[in-house]
Amino acid sequence: MPELRREPVSGRWVIIATERAARPTDFQTNHHQPVKNSFCPFCEGNEDKTPPEIMAYRGNGSKADSSGWRVRVVPNKFPALRTEGEQNIHGEGIYEMMNGIGVHEVIIESPKHVVSLTELGNGNVEDVLRSYRDRLIEIKKDKRFVYGLLFKNVGVAAGASLEHTHSQLIATPIVPQLVENEMERAEAFFNNSSKCIFCDMIQQEIAVGKRIVTSTEKFISFTPFASRFPFETWILPKKHETHFENLQKFEIDELANVLKNTLAKLESALDFPPYNFIIHSTPFNIQKSEYFHWHIEIIPRLTNIAGFEWGTGFYINPMPPEEAAEILRKK
Amino acid sequence: MPELRREPVSGRWVIIATERAARPTDFQTNHHQPVKNSFCPFCEGNEDKTPPEIMAYRGNGSKADSSGWRVRVVPNKFPALRTEGEQNIHGEGIYEMMNGIGVHEVIIESPKHVVSLTELGNGNVEDVLRSYRDRLIEIKKDKRFVYGLLFKNVGVAAGASLEHTHSQLIATPIVPQLVENEMERAEAFFNNSSKCIFCDMIQQEIAVGKRIVTSTEKFISFTPFASRFPFETWILPKKHETHFENLQKFEIDELANVLKNTLAKLESALDFPPYNFIIHSTPFNIQKSEYFHWHIEIIPRLTNIAGFEWGTGFYINPMPPEEAAEILRKK
Repeated sequence: MPELRREPVSGRWVIIATERAARPTDFQTNHHQPVKNSFCPFCEGNEDKTPPEIMAYRGNGSKADSSGWRVRVVPNKFPALRTEGEQNIHGEGIYEMMNGIGVHEVIIESPKHVVSLTELGNGNVEDVLRSYRDRLIEIKKDKRFVYGLLFKNVGVAAGASLEHTHSQLIATPIVPQLVENEMERAEAFFNNSSKCIFCDMIQQEIAVGKRIVTSTEKFISFTPFASRFPFETWILPKKHETHFENLQKFEIDELANVLKNTLAKLESALDFPPYNFIIHSTPFNIQKSEYFHWHIEIIPRLTNIAGFEWGTGFYINPMPPEEAAEILRKK
Repeated sequence: MPELRREPVSGRWVIIATERAARPTDFQTNHHQPVKNSFCPFCEGNEDKTPPEIMAYRGNGSKADSSGWRVRVVPNKFPALRTEGEQNIHGEGIYEMMNGIGVHEVIIESPKHVVSLTELGNGNVEDVLRSYRDRLIEIKKDKRFVYGLLFKNVGVAAGASLEHTHSQLIATPIVPQLVENEMERAEAFFNNSSKCIFCDMIQQEIAVGKRIVTSTEKFISFTPFASRFPFETWILPKKHETHFENLQKFEIDELANVLKNTLAKLESALDFPPYNFIIHSTPFNIQKSEYFHWHIEIIPRLTNIAGFEWGTGFYINPMPPEEAAEILRKK
């Protein structure tokens, strides 16, 4: 009998096919096949092929938009939103719209043509996470924007157009619906129980153990109880932390290790799958929050979204998260 | 400047790239390429290759699970949910789950190996819609199920595993989250305005005209103001109708015509794109509803869903619906 499971934070229902579980080798389509491009605008030496850099971690004496950097942040050449202008909310009868203002940046994670974050040295991964934090702190100062989403697309099937390892940051003038939904449900849980729903979940995952992928002093990664996708994996700080951008240096170092390790396990189990990861953090305009806890969601893109999912918001997952975690723990 | 638009029923935000609009020829990937399979279990003569039929429209004297049918409904051989058993809601600490009971049926739309609904004669399309209605009426009698989603996946990129033209029906023991969300927002709109939000939208679309694809006496198809995807198209009855299964014969005939015509326009403009369509109707356990209005959502699958969409619930649509409608009207 398949099982219907509800993800407590989002309220999403997932159908877990507990009977005929898939094996990692069942997901052979759309794998991320590293192919060297003939020309890559993200490689060191090609700095003039991107818009001028916003920020970079550089060696002493090296100049902006020249070589000598470790991590480099540039505006997206084809931005989804534009930085100039005001929000200007207006209506048209029943409809509501506003100007598409926002920020759309690309974090180039290495000067070398490397196609996975897991190929980077630990210090380099720490630099990447530090750049995430630094950009959020900077963008937060612009009061037009209330949210900043950090995300990563790896592989064509996951929406990547360039293979050189990179992440993106999009800041928006409104809190995204999915985040708002998670916040509302987490707040309702807090109002009922005086507890953070994420802290509760972490406690239960540690007690049960069967969905844990890695656990360190400060961080845990596990396959969520109601995973939408095979091998979906979340990373959370064990302590109640609201904003990603409040991360301290020693926490960044440990997170870099957990992130790289978790991704390496996925790559090993699934032969370099296409994947997305996204970071959900508390909106900029909420200073303190007792109920929202930042987290990273890693989504391997192995299955197709079809009519049933589009029509219901249900997901069908042929891989029970308990089995996925067991496979990942061994990698 | 891109435009942020909000879909009034779901509350979804969409980024419409009004500046650099795409052209239909920009979407060249993943097109639905009809390929004849060597063996097709849905073709007439192969009735023993599917589970025994639940219902079929047949010529006089022809027997169940033999040839002589026009439309045939069979259980899905690999069902997402199982018909036997009880709901049995239970918890595990913070988590909630239940048995995966439900109905999962396949509507085989033609005895011939045809790969698009648009290749069927009008009478045949009417039979398909009539089978949708008849199955909903039948399944509704089982009080364990509160919702039935009719949907269609066309092309591998849209999740189809067989090309022979078919639709699916999944009935669930709970109202899907997306439908519940639409119902809640529609109810709130009704409580504020004493009007059905869909009726209001239809009125505005007719007045404005620029997003209409087809309009007949009883039905309208248009590209929604906040289309998530290029060429997304909705079909609605102009009169306030709550349940798809309440359709009368003369309405079915007209809807068959509008559906076939709208799909033919999409196939002509986009060279047989992969697509999904889904039907949202009022849940079985709500007899009357002044605020919810059934509708068909057709989603061509031309663009990729990536980290930003997964993290926010926003969609980026490079094709303004006004331009899409203009292209479709001319086809």
